[in-house]
Parts: sequence; C-alpha cells; structure tokens
Amino acid sequence: MKSFTIVEINELLKGELVGTCDEQITGAEQLERATAQQITFIGSNKFAKLWEASKASVAIVDAKIKLEPGDNRALIRVKNADLAMATLLEALEPAPPVLEEDIHPTAVVHESVVLGKGCKIGAGCYVGKNVVLGDGVVLYPNVSIFDDSKIGHHTVVWSGTVIRERSEIGNHCIFHINVSIGADGFGYRPSDDGRGLVKIPHIGNVIIGNYVEIGANSCVDRGKFSATIIGDGCKIDNLVQIAHNCILGRSCIMAGHSGLAGSVTLGDGVIIGGSASIKDHTTINSGAVIGAGSGVMGDVDAGKTVLGYPATDARDMLKQWVALKRLSKN
Amino acid sequence: MKSFTIVEINELLKGELVGTCDEQITGAEQLERATAQQITFIGSNKFAKLWEASKASVAIVDAKIKLEPGDNRALIRVKNADLAMATLLEALEPAPPVLEEDIHPTAVVHESVVLGKGCKIGAGCYVGKNVVLGDGVVLYPNVSIFDDSKIGHHTVVWSGTVIRERSEIGNHCIFHINVSIGADGFGYRPSDDGRGLVKIPHIGNVIIGNYVEIGANSCVDRGKFSATIIGDGCKIDNLVQIAHNCILGRSCIMAGHSGLAGSVTLGDGVIIGGSASIKDHTTINSGAVIGAGSGVMGDVDAGKTVLGYPATDARDMLKQWVALKRLSKN
Amino acid sequence: MKSFTIVEINELLKGELVGTCDEQITGAEQLERATAQQITFIGSNKFAKLWEASKASVAIVDAKIKLEPGDNRALIRVKNADLAMATLLEALEPAPPVLEEDIHPTAVVHESVVLGKGCKIGAGCYVGKNVVLGDGVVLYPNVSIFDDSKIGHHTVVWSGTVIRERSEIGNHCIFHINVSIGADGFGYRPSDDGRGLVKIPHIGNVIIGNYVEIGANSCVDRGKFSATIIGDGCKIDNLVQIAHNCILGRSCIMAGHSGLAGSVTLGDGVIIGGSASIKDHTTINSGAVIGAGSGVMGDVDAGKTVLGYPATDARDMLKQWVALKRLSKN
Repeated sequence: MKSFTIVEINELLKGELVGTCDEQITGAEQLERATAQQITFIGSNKFAKLWEASKASVAIVDAKIKLEPGDNRALIRVKNADLAMATLLEALEPAPPVLEEDIHPTAVVHESVVLGKGCKIGAGCYVGKNVVLGDGVVLYPNVSIFDDSKIGHHTVVWSGTVIRERSEIGNHCIFHINVSIGADGFGYRPSDDGRGLVKIPHIGNVIIGNYVEIGANSCVDRGKFSATIIGDGCKIDNLVQIAHNCILGRSCIMAGHSGLAGSVTLGDGVIIGGSASIKDHTTINSGAVIGAGSGVMGDVDAGKTVLGYPATDARDMLKQWVALKRLSKN
Repeated sequence: MKSFTIVEINELLKGELVGTCDEQITGAEQLERATAQQITFIGSNKFAKLWEASKASVAIVDAKIKLEPGDNRALIRVKNADLAMATLLEALEPAPPVLEEDIHPTAVVHESVVLGKGCKIGAGCYVGKNVVLGDGVVLYPNVSIFDDSKIGHHTVVWSGTVIRERSEIGNHCIFHINVSIGADGFGYRPSDDGRGLVKIPHIGNVIIGNYVEIGANSCVDRGKFSATIIGDGCKIDNLVQIAHNCILGRSCIMAGHSGLAGSVTLGDGVIIGGSASIKDHTTINSGAVIGAGSGVMGDVDAGKTVLGYPATDARDMLKQWVALKRLSKN
Repeated sequence: MKSFTIVEINELLKGELVGTCDEQITGAEQLERATAQQITFIGSNKFAKLWEASKASVAIVDAKIKLEPGDNRALIRVKNADLAMATLLEALEPAPPVLEEDIHPTAVVHESVVLGKGCKIGAGCYVGKNVVLGDGVVLYPNVSIFDDSKIGHHTVVWSGTVIRERSEIGNHCIFHINVSIGADGFGYRPSDDGRGLVKIPHIGNVIIGNYVEIGANSCVDRGKFSATIIGDGCKIDNLVQIAHNCILGRSCIMAGHSGLAGSVTLGDGVIIGGSASIKDHTTINSGAVIGAGSGVMGDVDAGKTVLGYPATDARDMLKQWVALKRLSKN
C-alpha cells in the first residue's frame, strides 16, 4: 500500500499547507467516511461545514474556502481543487491486478500470434491466427481476440471483451469489461420474394486510434465495407452504441447510453451527453455539444450546443420548454 | 420434474377449489399454450373467455371473476391472483443448472482465495488473489472476479459477469449474465497542453448490500475515490448504467435501460422507470418515482412522482402534453 | 483472399460496364480511402465529384448519375446501386475465423450433449447437460450454453454470449458478441412484512425462431411462466432489451438501444427505431413503425407510424413540434 506524509502530499500538489499532522496517508475518502489515514476533499462551501465532524486528518481545499484545520489536522489549499485531486489520485492509485504468468497455461494463443515485449495474457483468453500484440499489452482473463487483429503497445483489455477479426487498435487504449468490438453492422435488404429480410455482409473492420478508452458493455460495429473509425483520445462511456461506418475525430466524449446510428461522422472534440442518440448519416462538427437525452436528427454546426428531442439550439430548446410549461398553466 | 395434484396446489395457495381433476400438474403456461399437465392463470375478465378453449386442467382465478370449471377441470379461486401465482411459481421452480464439481478443474483460482462451505466454481472461471467467497456462493462458468473482492454468502454469479478488484458484495445477491462491476468511472481532465484529455484514476470501489439483484449486461462503475454503493434489496434490471460514486438506498428499483450519471444519490424505495436518466450530482429522495423515459435534471422530493424530459411533477407533465396536443390542432 | 476482374464483377451485378481496367479487385472501400485494387460505390451525385480524385479502379454507379470513368478505370452502371453493393459484398466476403478443431480441448461439453454434424465448439466454451446442437452449429470461444437448451442447424454464436437453460433456438440464427439469452425476468412482489421486495421466480424460457439475428450486448429475458418468443427472421440490433414474456412476430426490426418492457406483443414486420421504448403489456400491430427515440405508452394500430414521447401519430407529433417551436418564438 502506498503511504505519504502530508508534507509529501503538499509538495506533490504545490499547495499551501496549513496546520500539522503526523499521520501517514494511505487513501482518499469523502468527508463523512474518511478515517485518520485518509485525505479528503473540499471543493465548495457546501462541504466545508462537514470538516469539523470528519475523521480525515487532512483535506485538499479550494483556496477560496475559509476554513481552519483544527488540532493535529491539516489543510492543503490549492487553486484548482479538481486538478489537485486528480494529481493526488494518480499518486495514490494502487497497482492494477497482477497476472503472475506472462501467458497463462489455460490461454489459447495461436502459434502465428506475434507478441510484443512484456505482454500478459490471462487465463481463458483466446487469441486467433495472425493477431499482433504490441509491447506491454495486457489481456485480462477471458478476453477473446480474433484473427488478423492488431493491438497497439500498452493497450489493456479487461475481461469479457471480444475483439473481432481484422480490428486495428492503437497504443495505450483501455477496453473495459464486456466490450464488443467489430460485430457485424445492422444492415438488411428485403428478400427477392419480398417476404423477409436478407443480411448484408459487413466486410469492413474497426480502426481505433491511440489513447482511446471504451467503457463496459459498449459496442463498436465493423463497417459494411471500409471501416468504423475512432480517433485518438476519444473517451467512450458504458453501454454506448457506435454503429457501422461511424467516424469519430479526435478526443470526442460519449457519455453512458448514448448512441450513434450508422455512418454518423463526429468532428474533433465533440461531446455527446448521456442517453443522447444521433440519426444515421448525420455530421456533428468539431466542438459541438449534444445535451443529455437529446435525439439529434440533422447535422450540427461546429461549436454549437444542441438539446432536446428533436434536438435544436440549446437556448431555443430551453425557451420551448419554458413556453410549454407556461402554456400548460393557462 | 416437480409434480402436484390440484388439491396440493389449492392447499399451498389457500384458495377455494371448484371442480375436480385428476391430472398431475408439472408446469404453468398461459391459456392458449397450456397442456393438460399445466396450470394457467386468469387475472381479469379479458382472459376468462379463453378458458373454455384452453387445454389447461386447472386455473388460478381471481375471486371476482365469474367462471365455471367444466368437466374434469378445476378452478382455484383466490383473493390475490398475482400473489398466488408468485407462490405457485416458487413451488414449481425447477432446480437451477447443477455444477457437478465443486471447483471445476478448468477454473483458475488463486491459492490465496478463501472459500466458504459449499461454494461452486464453474468451468473457465477466474478468481484472483485474496478473494473471499462466502458459504454457498455459486460462480457459473466463465465468471471473472479480481483481487481482494469479497462475495457474501449464497450469492449467485452468472456467466460472463466480471467483478473488478476490491469490490464488496453482500449475501444472497444475484448477478445475471454479462454484468460489469467495478470498471473505472468516466472521468477525464484536459491535458496540460490543452490538446486532449487525461484519465483521472478511479481508486475507489463498489460496495453492494444484501439481496441485491443486477440484470444482464448492466454496469456499476467504481468510485473515483470512496465507493459506489448499492443498498440492501435493490433490484436492477438489464442494461442499466450506475456511474461512479452513486449511492442507492434500500430497495430501489431501476428498470431496463435506465441510468444514473456520476454521484447521483437515491433514497430508499426509489423507483426509476425504463430508459429514464438522472443527471450527475442530483438526489432523488426516498419513495420518489421517476416515470419511464424521463430525463431528470434536478433533485426530486421524497414521495414525488416526476415524468418527462425534462422531468417535472407528473401531473404537470401530463398537462403539458395535453396542452401541446391541443395547441397543435389549433 | 478473393479476387475478381471487373468483367467478372459486372457479370455478377448484371450492370453496364463503361471503360476498361485490368486490375484485380480484392476489396471494397469508400471513395477517399480506396486503392487501385478496390471497388467503390457512388450512390448519389453528392459523391460523384469525388470519383476523379479517388484511387479506386472501378465504381458501382447508380444509372442515373452522369459520370465518365477516365483512363484505365471503369464504371459499372446499375439500376439499384444498394442491391448491387449487397450482392458484391456477398461475393467479396472473407471467410469467417476458422476454428481449427471441432471441439477444442479446453471446451467443457457435458457427456449428455447431442452434437449435429460439423459442429464447432471453440476454446473455453461451456455446454451443459442435455444440450442439443444442430448440424453446422458454431460456438466461438468463451460461449456458455446451459442445460436442456436446443440450438438449431447452422446457428452461429459469437464469444461472450450466454444462453441460459431450456432455451429453444432455431436454425440459421446469429448471436453476436456478449448477448444474454434467458436471464430471469424483472419481477418482484412486496415482502409479507412490507419492508422489501421478494423475487418472483421466472420458470419460463426463451423460444427463438429461424434466421433471427441478435446484436452485441443485447438481452432477451426468460418468461415468468410460458415463454418469451421471437419469430422467424427478426433482426435485433445492439444493446436492445427484450423483457420477459414479450412475443415478436416474423421479421421485426429493433434498432440499437430500443427496448420492450414485459409482455409486449409485436405483430409481423414491426420496425422499432433506435432508443425507442415500449411500455409493458402493449401491442404493436403488424407493419407498425415506431420512430427513433419514441416512448410508446399504448397499443399501436397495424401499419401506423408513431413518433415522440409520448408517442403519437407521426404527422401529429411533427405538428406538435412545429407548434411548440412557433409558440416559443412568440
């Protein structure tokens, strides 16, 4: 377990230390649940009043908050409390679960697989023909990766995730639990006799850049032909759907339960709120923000914020909501 | 296979038996599909007219429904037909799939794992360092549980479910198929050079109480620091998202596709309808009901029912919907 | 790798070949990304202007589009460009990943299992007691199938999918990654002491017809009693929820993130848009269309298109949206 003095923590955060305290700090906890060995966090006056009753020995405090530490307790005043907490969490982060063997004997790894230096392949994993794993790739137990896929350096794949054939994954990505990469897109045509639907083969693949994170139980379908592409630095939350042939630029964010229908294009830095859905073949240009719960049915201009169902300019939508409320009270 | 006479069933349900029938009953089925060996269920007059043509030998009938059994058929009249059916289903429930070995030889269980009495660990499971499994825990095949997690007595974990390190799970819980517990929360900060996003480590964990049920493909993320907490008796449906640092009280219900963004607090007995979403950092107080499909953007008072997007008092929302409909017809 | 001359492709598509080109075509790609060995696709005038700069040697072109091929390049003019592309994709489709052994030695298959001719069972699969697999069934690695289930001929089950006990699956179905079939339905009753919820056993099963496709991370729950039924030819996208005792007719389509609450009935050919939700116990009659994002709270007549939340006749909903927009600008 990692352990720090408050002086060490203050040096790390480049804050102003007020008060003294000789506890060794081994973790972080919220005010009500903290013990003497834990540091806590006070980002607003709302929480400042909980400090006195808290058992925490030390708190990171936004410099604007007036507060005294008390006996054998300390405060670390910082300008940006959120950033300081992020820095501290990096220091306190425990090591991830260790896989004791490089390739677990129960893993099934095809003889043609190319392994980088320091790869770990956990129990029950399946790695198919001609897969290439970069240096430092970690496959936790029960991951399946299919033929001809490439996984870049230092990418981590958690249990239950499946990556279908011919996927190309960049470096430093994280795939969380039960992620589905490269399943067939959803495309059918009427059968010749008009009485049913015939599957359209999806012969494309999935291409994912560097530093991409994909949340638990999220899905990225393969292209019908060509690829579904996720740009560098995109962060995808849990239970998100990215359909065939979508193209995401750099550093896009998609929150939980959001979804892109087929062939949606996102520019760079697009933010999509939770449970929002985007119609197929639309383009959301760079820097646009889609509010939570929105249903977007057309293109969105760069930098614009839209909201609602059907989504429109956010200020207009707020006006619509106000107008409707007023109308109902007439 | 379990088998009952209709007299035995009537004793179980404490109903009024009308008519006679010598069939042995081995299952339950709806009116149109039932065979002579099956019991059926008539909860409203809408279904009573299907009795004559049904092949079922016996029906549980709400006492208010007028109906005669017919030759060699019987009715069991009860005051609360739903409760009687639940009681009957408990009696008819077949045994769950049996794992013939206590620890399947293909399971990978770290030598430090502590096993309660009567645990079963299925084929292909992975159980990491220092995991503690209580008495009677069942891990069906292909479950992964990571280091330092604790699973309480008689908890059942179905295939494909993954429980990440340091999770604390209570007694008598059920995790359905492909559940994801303890993946990192969704939190990033802008990089120092402003050109991307940096992952904030999530060093907290997940704490789940007793008698909690979590549906297929649902996700509960670990806390950023501190814990994501689910209280005793909560029932979570399929494809539900519970983000980092949410706190659920006792006996909350979340229906399919619903989601809580980060740091949402639910009181006790909160009911969240299907596909409803709750904004981060909001509090839904005890006994509140969130209608299906709602998008909740602020705190909800105890016992209140809200509805719509954006969610508001349910009666007000119904008025808004009526007003809008009327407006569009002007 | 498959390889075709453009003459061969033109014969396959029964089009009109304009221009000549001696490249062997081995794949399909969009205009901007294509190489000389790839065929591309021009379905509208919007894309025709990209032809000149494209490196593709040949394009399938809608007959209505005016375009000249250029030097050593060719166009294949067709009446129905979408259909032609589907036909071409069938020809170009690479073979699926090959499992080199019929039953991988790490798979756990109960001695009572009945295997059809040519079945493949991948690494780490679990197949329980009395399961029957038809001819040509493929279970990719890390699939779990529980006792007494039947899987029809030529059905393919991708990794991470779990099929619970007593499921009955038809022929030629495809289950994509991490699908959950037959988990318990979501049903509880208040406990006798009124202080909690008691689980209602779900003793029914799931019955799925022929040519059904179920997308990644989607869920179909078992019936409370009786069955949850999915008719022949239904196509279900990713992250879809189908609750206990739903009954789907033939050839229904459910797009990503859509969901049916308990005991919903769909007729034949119903189309449910992405993220749409249907209230429990409602009936959506044959040929009805539910717009994306809709929240359906009552029965829908055959052939009708509904939209919105709450869903109503689509034209009426569009009028409501227009009226509200106008109102907010007053």
